[in-house]
Amino acid sequence: MNNNLRYLFNPDSIAIIGCSPNAKKIGGRPLDYLIKYGYKGRIYPINPNYQEIRDLTCYETIKNVPGEVDLAIIALPQKLVLSTFQTCIEKKVKSVVIFSSGFSEVGDLGKQEQDQLTKLAKENNIRILGPNCLGLFNVRKGMYATFSTILEEDAPIQGGKIGFVSQSGAFGSHVFTLARQHHIGFSHFVATGNESDIDVADCIQYLAEDEETDVIACYIEGAKDGKKLIEAFQLAKQKKKPIVILKVGKTDVGMKAAMSHTGSMVGSDEVYDTIFRQYGVYRAHTIEEFIDVAQAFSELPAVNGNRVAIFTVSGGVGIMLADQVMENGLALPETPEDVQKRLKEMLPIASVKNPLDTTAQINFMPTLLEDFMEEVLESGQFDSAIAFLGFAGLKTDSLNTRIKSLLKIKAKFPQIPLVTVTLNNPASKKLFYEKGLVVNEDPTRAVKMISALYKLGKNMEPVQPEIQRENKDVNLYDIISSSSAELTEYASKQIVAQYDIPVTKEILAKSEKEAVEFAEEIGYPVALKGMSPQILHKTEKGLVLLNVKDPQGVKEGFNHLKKIIDETEQADFEGVLVQEMLTEKSMEMFVGSKKDPIFGQMILVGLGGIYIEAFKDVAMRKAPVTTEMAKEMIEELKSSKLLKEFRGNAAYDVNALCELVSKFSYMIDTWEEEIEEADLNPTIVFRNGLGVKVADALMKLDKKSEVILM
Amino acid sequence: MNNNLRYLFNPDSIAIIGCSPNAKKIGGRPLDYLIKYGYKGRIYPINPNYQEIRDLTCYETIKNVPGEVDLAIIALPQKLVLSTFQTCIEKKVKSVVIFSSGFSEVGDLGKQEQDQLTKLAKENNIRILGPNCLGLFNVRKGMYATFSTILEEDAPIQGGKIGFVSQSGAFGSHVFTLARQHHIGFSHFVATGNESDIDVADCIQYLAEDEETDVIACYIEGAKDGKKLIEAFQLAKQKKKPIVILKVGKTDVGMKAAMSHTGSMVGSDEVYDTIFRQYGVYRAHTIEEFIDVAQAFSELPAVNGNRVAIFTVSGGVGIMLADQVMENGLALPETPEDVQKRLKEMLPIASVKNPLDTTAQINFMPTLLEDFMEEVLESGQFDSAIAFLGFAGLKTDSLNTRIKSLLKIKAKFPQIPLVTVTLNNPASKKLFYEKGLVVNEDPTRAVKMISALYKLGKNMEPVQPEIQRENKDVNLYDIISSSSAELTEYASKQIVAQYDIPVTKEILAKSEKEAVEFAEEIGYPVALKGMSPQILHKTEKGLVLLNVKDPQGVKEGFNHLKKIIDETEQADFEGVLVQEMLTEKSMEMFVGSKKDPIFGQMILVGLGGIYIEAFKDVAMRKAPVTTEMAKEMIEELKSSKLLKEFRGNAAYDVNALCELVSKFSYMIDTWEEEIEEADLNPTIVFRNGLGVKVADALMKLDKKSEVILM
Repeated sequence: MNNNLRYLFNPDSIAIIGCSPNAKKIGGRPLDYLIKYGYKGRIYPINPNYQEIRDLTCYETIKNVPGEVDLAIIALPQKLVLSTFQTCIEKKVKSVVIFSSGFSEVGDLGKQEQDQLTKLAKENNIRILGPNCLGLFNVRKGMYATFSTILEEDAPIQGGKIGFVSQSGAFGSHVFTLARQHHIGFSHFVATGNESDIDVADCIQYLAEDEETDVIACYIEGAKDGKKLIEAFQLAKQKKKPIVILKVGKTDVGMKAAMSHTGSMVGSDEVYDTIFRQYGVYRAHTIEEFIDVAQAFSELPAVNGNRVAIFTVSGGVGIMLADQVMENGLALPETPEDVQKRLKEMLPIASVKNPLDTTAQINFMPTLLEDFMEEVLESGQFDSAIAFLGFAGLKTDSLNTRIKSLLKIKAKFPQIPLVTVTLNNPASKKLFYEKGLVVNEDPTRAVKMISALYKLGKNMEPVQPEIQRENKDVNLYDIISSSSAELTEYASKQIVAQYDIPVTKEILAKSEKEAVEFAEEIGYPVALKGMSPQILHKTEKGLVLLNVKDPQGVKEGFNHLKKIIDETEQADFEGVLVQEMLTEKSMEMFVGSKKDPIFGQMILVGLGGIYIEAFKDVAMRKAPVTTEMAKEMIEELKSSKLLKEFRGNAAYDVNALCELVSKFSYMIDTWEEEIEEADLNPTIVFRNGLGVKVADALMKLDKKSEVILM
Repeated sequence: MNNNLRYLFNPDSIAIIGCSPNAKKIGGRPLDYLIKYGYKGRIYPINPNYQEIRDLTCYETIKNVPGEVDLAIIALPQKLVLSTFQTCIEKKVKSVVIFSSGFSEVGDLGKQEQDQLTKLAKENNIRILGPNCLGLFNVRKGMYATFSTILEEDAPIQGGKIGFVSQSGAFGSHVFTLARQHHIGFSHFVATGNESDIDVADCIQYLAEDEETDVIACYIEGAKDGKKLIEAFQLAKQKKKPIVILKVGKTDVGMKAAMSHTGSMVGSDEVYDTIFRQYGVYRAHTIEEFIDVAQAFSELPAVNGNRVAIFTVSGGVGIMLADQVMENGLALPETPEDVQKRLKEMLPIASVKNPLDTTAQINFMPTLLEDFMEEVLESGQFDSAIAFLGFAGLKTDSLNTRIKSLLKIKAKFPQIPLVTVTLNNPASKKLFYEKGLVVNEDPTRAVKMISALYKLGKNMEPVQPEIQRENKDVNLYDIISSSSAELTEYASKQIVAQYDIPVTKEILAKSEKEAVEFAEEIGYPVALKGMSPQILHKTEKGLVLLNVKDPQGVKEGFNHLKKIIDETEQADFEGVLVQEMLTEKSMEMFVGSKKDPIFGQMILVGLGGIYIEAFKDVAMRKAPVTTEMAKEMIEELKSSKLLKEFRGNAAYDVNALCELVSKFSYMIDTWEEEIEEADLNPTIVFRNGLGVKVADALMKLDKKSEVILM
């Protein structure tokens, strides 16, 4: 990074190029907001047609501005942008926001002009937000470099702790407005537009370091630089700032829409999902979940465990909440017996086990709610609480009584996150906000909030130190004899074997005589496989012979396989692989890697054989993967049951499998540029203590590597 | 049913026993509502302490009432209920609502008294709603037999078409209030309480026949009579009234809460889920989904297909909607090219493929929305539409412009369901309602509404005529030789074979000599299995010998197996089963039945072997199952891929499998009382055209059957 984003997010001086005295115009709105919401820095309107705008001196060009300019807003027609930007460079402006559209989003010509902006920015140490962007604002500083209409009528909520980054201005404006209706405040709002320079990852990094921001909320359609995004996630985690992301473009159709909407490249959604989980980012799937979870992170204390106490005025909603608590990975322990007894004394008709149903009696006993909550939470057996109050929020009397109770409980148990659920109107919503109580109208959404806090708590735990495997002195290209980027089973296994990954006992025979010698050495029966870099699907071509039992069989087999290859056009004969037969009781697994265009090498593990395709039971991580992480991957598989003691079957050697996955992942990481795809399939897992063996393998190198090989 | 529910839901005369002049009291509230909301029938307050209440003559007891009483409300302390009910019987009252609590929900004593009420009601042709219930109301008739507070301040929405049945009064009140906030109206509201007589199924049946009800919404915790509930579902379907259900008690913890909340027995949730799907009931999982879908069914036209057009002012929300449309089983076809061209002419910067993004330009071109929508919908390529308008709903100007456009489109395309999505305040919500437009604040929820309409459309298709299989003249008890309720493989297969279900070739040998004879007849190799009704897990006991190749082996095998059984305490020796070995290429499946305590015989199909437990890949239906339904079951399985042509493998004989499942289901249905559980596992499916064979089977009879066998 050539300069930091302080000048953008927190400038001491702002020039508005294309400034207008009309607050309804794009060039007038920022000035209006800056004045209205009390920006304390210097403001320089720039417009050759005015001497003065709203009592501020107006300058003909930015060059005439007397002082330094931290941030220049460019609100001009597209054709003037490039030359104006050059003037900004001359003026040594630190950063610019370009509102103007007509760049990469409209096609090649626009893209070229945008690329020029990018190049100039890099060369001249000036940062660009946009073009084609709605701008940004910093609420605490009253800094509004945006033409969004969302601030025309209502001010933003003050004191918010959520930093909000959006790749879409319209989406961001919508979410901002919705959040404001619910009195949820943001510290910053930034729409990144075409991301010619500053992207979402840059903004996350800035907000991770920002003292006024506790939580980072992001809307993204796709990242161009996966590595940078991961670094931003890691920084946020280190700074203990949770991130909640809404990423769209999940399905193929959604992705197509994403590509026509922005110029960004959209990676496969499962990879994003993996990256988010691996780096502790909470992924929301709907707008409701997005703002609910951001609010939970910013307004509730961290939760210490998964035990939820449910207080309800409706048995029915209590049962529904109980279902949803369990479905979201939380727990609903029974109230301790002594507490139950005391609650029953208070109200014999109450349900006291958890959910705790105070019934409609709550309307006649004003302290019932606080008495129940106090008894239950004091037991120390619960980490969070949900209070369902029906439509009490709509009735002034009951609302005031309940709020009194809730405040008492909040004061007494400040460490316990509490979400109140009740129907609301604008007045009662405001009252809850002013009292510092978190309220939602829907019970299901309250459970999601608590569940997100709990998942987050686990994500924020310090990362385990990565086991650094020793650097192997292996040169990929020394091993490969052919010039094809697609490697045979033999070549692929030669490579993995260099990394101490156990493979089947096997030797490549170049002649009939060698084949027999090797078979004797390995021991009968053997498998024979014809190797040709041009024929990778051996079985379909009839290049696999199993259970060959004697020298005569080996001789005939060798010649048969060689003949098939020789008769195949443009196929080179590499040799015949003489291989041991595996007969021990075992489980077939699949271990592989795939180079994602955004995030790089991803490691995959799953059940092998035909079942993987039917059940899509695959776990994924970004490489490298420690053995601990590999264990987590195996645990994620539904089929992991089959690897354990099961129906009287002994367990399989999961430890050896994890060790293999980890070694493989470090190998892939070492050659992250060179290896395009690798499959160890099947990887045979024997009974506990008996290890693993790669029975077949395939590897495909990057096209660039092919050039090296030639 | 001894009398219909007309007197309850639509009475011409109502007596209120325990009536009070105080509208805040339980006995006063119904009278207050009846007067306030204009009930046209006769009202008889009953209370010995008053001559008159609110200008109506008050009677000492119901016996003094001069005319007939269709409905009596009992609002008295528990101890007076039974005697009062007896007086109602004497007065020949048609139906009663009992508000009073203190019955089955408080324990055995209360249960006994409730049982007396039930008995008296049946004997005297009088219907009871409750006890322990909030009552009911009929909006059109101004008939309020409830003490719920939800009508104290605000009237219900008039003209609603949703009939709402709830097993929980508090839940019902909450949903009613929430719906009213969104201007969603109900035709009826009924809370069934302890269901001593009238239950949810009765209410569904009444509402299915009711002319003012188009949609039935139910909250349930559990049904006691599954058969009756299914009949109610079938009646509603026949009357083309969609049902949306929110059923709680899904998880074990939820179910425990359900049991402590009501006296109802809660069946396993997967069975409920199956029944809902099988009988065309839409299951909602959250309160939001519940009211959204009920609203969609009641206010939108039926949808003719799955093709959705998305209109949006935010590209980002457009992508999100595209994702969700696909995830919900809907389609998002591209706009026809000629239409795209015309749209581009209107607005070059628009996205015109679908999602259709009008961009913020919509603010400057007042007819842009209607012009876009008209062009697109006129193509005839779309069945429904979603219009996302951001926060337009909060700004009076833009709101009015948009509503004008939407009304024009609604008038022009009345057959196309249209959901508008925008942020709202109470005033704008009201405006949408008054204009007859369906609006929601959340895009995801709008997709769910359209998706529910589409699923419903398919569910409402006429049911295929059931293939009635011929009645077999089979007597279960003739076949069974032992006196145990648990049948051996041999006995179980003897039974299924009577129903033309193919089983392995096999004969039960009682002696060594017979065993050899049979083996010769079947052909070597054979399998030998020791049969004892007391030993059902044969493999674990070593009672299975495979691949027995000659007479000597058969002799030795017979004696070996007999010895194991003879040496097992309390095990009867039934014989040794001599069985063919199956060697052809095949797939192992699992076919079974399970008697659910609520809904009776459920048929299950899944992948056999160890995988079923790991992947829980099972399809379920209530018996009987036609071959068409069996085909649907197979299609539901993830593993159905493995039965089809797959990786060059030929397909397996799915038709024969479906035929087997159907025959099995009819057999189970015939013996629905007698058979507790049956497993055909594995059922071997051969290659296409080669059929199926049951390789092993187990059956367990109902305990009652055991008595017959003895």
